[in-house]
Amino acid sequence: MRPALSAKVQALQPSLIRELANEATGSAKFNDLIQLWYGEPDLPTPEVVRRACQQALDHGETFYTPNAGILPLREALAAYMNDLYGTSFGVERILVTGSGTLALTIASQALLAPGDVLVTHAPHWPNLSAIQQLRGARVVRVPLELHDGRWQLDLQRFFDACGPDTRAMLINSPANPTGWMLDDDGQLEILDFCRRRGIWLIADEVYNRIIYDRTHAPTFADKIGPDDPVLIVNSFSKTWAMTGWRLGWLTIPAGLLGRFEMLTEYTNSCTPAATQLAGVCAIREGEPYLRASLARWDQSRRLLRDAFAQLPRAHCPPAEAAFYAWFACEGVADSYALASDILHEARVGLAPGGAFAPEGEGWLRLCHAVAPETMARALERLSPVLK
Amino acid sequence: MRPALSAKVQALQPSLIRELANEATGSAKFNDLIQLWYGEPDLPTPEVVRRACQQALDHGETFYTPNAGILPLREALAAYMNDLYGTSFGVERILVTGSGTLALTIASQALLAPGDVLVTHAPHWPNLSAIQQLRGARVVRVPLELHDGRWQLDLQRFFDACGPDTRAMLINSPANPTGWMLDDDGQLEILDFCRRRGIWLIADEVYNRIIYDRTHAPTFADKIGPDDPVLIVNSFSKTWAMTGWRLGWLTIPAGLLGRFEMLTEYTNSCTPAATQLAGVCAIREGEPYLRASLARWDQSRRLLRDAFAQLPRAHCPPAEAAFYAWFACEGVADSYALASDILHEARVGLAPGGAFAPEGEGWLRLCHAVAPETMARALERLSPVLK
Repeated sequence: MRPALSAKVQALQPSLIRELANEATGSAKFNDLIQLWYGEPDLPTPEVVRRACQQALDHGETFYTPNAGILPLREALAAYMNDLYGTSFGVERILVTGSGTLALTIASQALLAPGDVLVTHAPHWPNLSAIQQLRGARVVRVPLELHDGRWQLDLQRFFDACGPDTRAMLINSPANPTGWMLDDDGQLEILDFCRRRGIWLIADEVYNRIIYDRTHAPTFADKIGPDDPVLIVNSFSKTWAMTGWRLGWLTIPAGLLGRFEMLTEYTNSCTPAATQLAGVCAIREGEPYLRASLARWDQSRRLLRDAFAQLPRAHCPPAEAAFYAWFACEGVADSYALASDILHEARVGLAPGGAFAPEGEGWLRLCHAVAPETMARALERLSPVLK
Repeated sequence: MRPALSAKVQALQPSLIRELANEATGSAKFNDLIQLWYGEPDLPTPEVVRRACQQALDHGETFYTPNAGILPLREALAAYMNDLYGTSFGVERILVTGSGTLALTIASQALLAPGDVLVTHAPHWPNLSAIQQLRGARVVRVPLELHDGRWQLDLQRFFDACGPDTRAMLINSPANPTGWMLDDDGQLEILDFCRRRGIWLIADEVYNRIIYDRTHAPTFADKIGPDDPVLIVNSFSKTWAMTGWRLGWLTIPAGLLGRFEMLTEYTNSCTPAATQLAGVCAIREGEPYLRASLARWDQSRRLLRDAFAQLPRAHCPPAEAAFYAWFACEGVADSYALASDILHEARVGLAPGGAFAPEGEGWLRLCHAVAPETMARALERLSPVLK
């Protein structure tokens, strides 16, 4: 008899998105499937960024790199944040990670012991819970609430959820899947609470630049001091269409770099040099690409809004940021069943809301980081099903 | 007052190799330093492998990949092992990981809960302990013993160390830093014990191909059945000079792929497609490179053996596999002090044995995965200090 895997691993839930995607695997019927279920831009990484990686490989950049990341990337990241946010981070505050997900893993390892509680809002990206559960920590979810057709977090309710075992809170703003954002005042309130109560804040800001009416969403980066108990998670994935590269970074408090270097050493050791040099290029030369992408995705977003306005059963609160439509369909409680119907009838792949914690049940997520032509085709197919 | 990091993280020890390396940073005196302290081949990755990655980037392979790895790489890995070992693994037994280190992290997450015990041999690569400690597990070390000038593991002593809390054992064969190998009979005994006692085995076989008198070292791969409680860790790093790529794989029991896919999703999600396609190329076209590398490293090994024969104070048991000389120096108890002396007097970087668990104290590790010319120069500098 083979012994069991650890209980935490047995308790993990498979991704409902992946289960649904499996329904479409291997059948010719889905050859023209429009996939809007993943949170991924539809274009490959800008060519100039790919070239930077290729050149690094030409130069033989294939050796181990420092745990914290190569200095040119850490310098570029500090400069990027300082230019964008008006901050003054030094490289000792920056840790390069092998993906935003790994940044979350490292943050979780840094802070949480079994039995610790992490408080966050829901619905949320499933990994935000599962990563903590792998540490044996307990995740307490505070639901976002719809007021006047907009998502809001009741901060008092959020603070009330923080008890004596609460070691950390996690704020994902702009949020996946809702597009909810915490404004500057709310961020200051959260920060003040964390300082007073000695609670760590993990701020997942991977959608910080995916916003349509300004250069960046509100950030904790321009509010924290060097000693604040805050870890900011960021990634190259969404901003520069680099999902497949696995490149992210953590902004950490002063004086902790040595500990985070060790955490990296004992998790995946380091990130490839050529990947990091591609990251330097993305930061330096990626802004025109980002502006063009946002313009495309905003067009798709408008098409979506106009189409949904014609579908009285569909209810889609407006999102100011990220690249998702998060919508409910009147009379539908089982979002997996609806997503499956849509997959089979419309050949459009949407993410069932139940994937995003129980608070997401009854909703569906659609990624609009696609060309307006693709979105128009998808909407043509969706409209009859959602009517 | 900023709250502390988790107690496990505060207990982590920084790498003594890195501390020593810091002594040489920024001083012109070390411009001609010969670095033999890391476990890394001295040449960049073969050009054909780099080209494969570059071509994949040309083709726009920059999107998310499946958690378990892309099918072409999993097929190539199964075929590689089946050809080499005479086994018949299917792709459902193969999980691609973002480095051998990450394979160990995922294995540890899969098996260990806080308070669990993992039994292993020592001295050993520091990550082998630290990774388990990050899970809150306890590592019990059984020392390798020198008999007739060769490293051996007393299996009875190893089994006696396995108590009721022992969830897993870890065997690293061929071993870093000693070059010790567990022979086929020993592997069968270990496997039998694990089966009878319901204890998991993590077999770290990243040095399986780094051997000078045959195609591969003894492996658990050709001894396990699909239901055995064994996870085999492997990596592209040492075999194909791909340390900087972060590409490894796990061979897992039947029926567990779904769990390991989830573990991957909730750790770093996936490995870059272009990296994986480079891995396919390394498997298909990397054998001539490996043979040439082994011939070079074997030459360096012989130079080393001959030079050490002239140094009566230096005691270096022969290693049949891996690419390290692991030696003691008569009258020296503090290996960090000796490594520091060697660094400053000879400008050769060696790893102090204390880095490899307390059992390594008094010893030094030298990586001979370098050109014979480099080794000759290093030995010229080392001899006066070790005389």
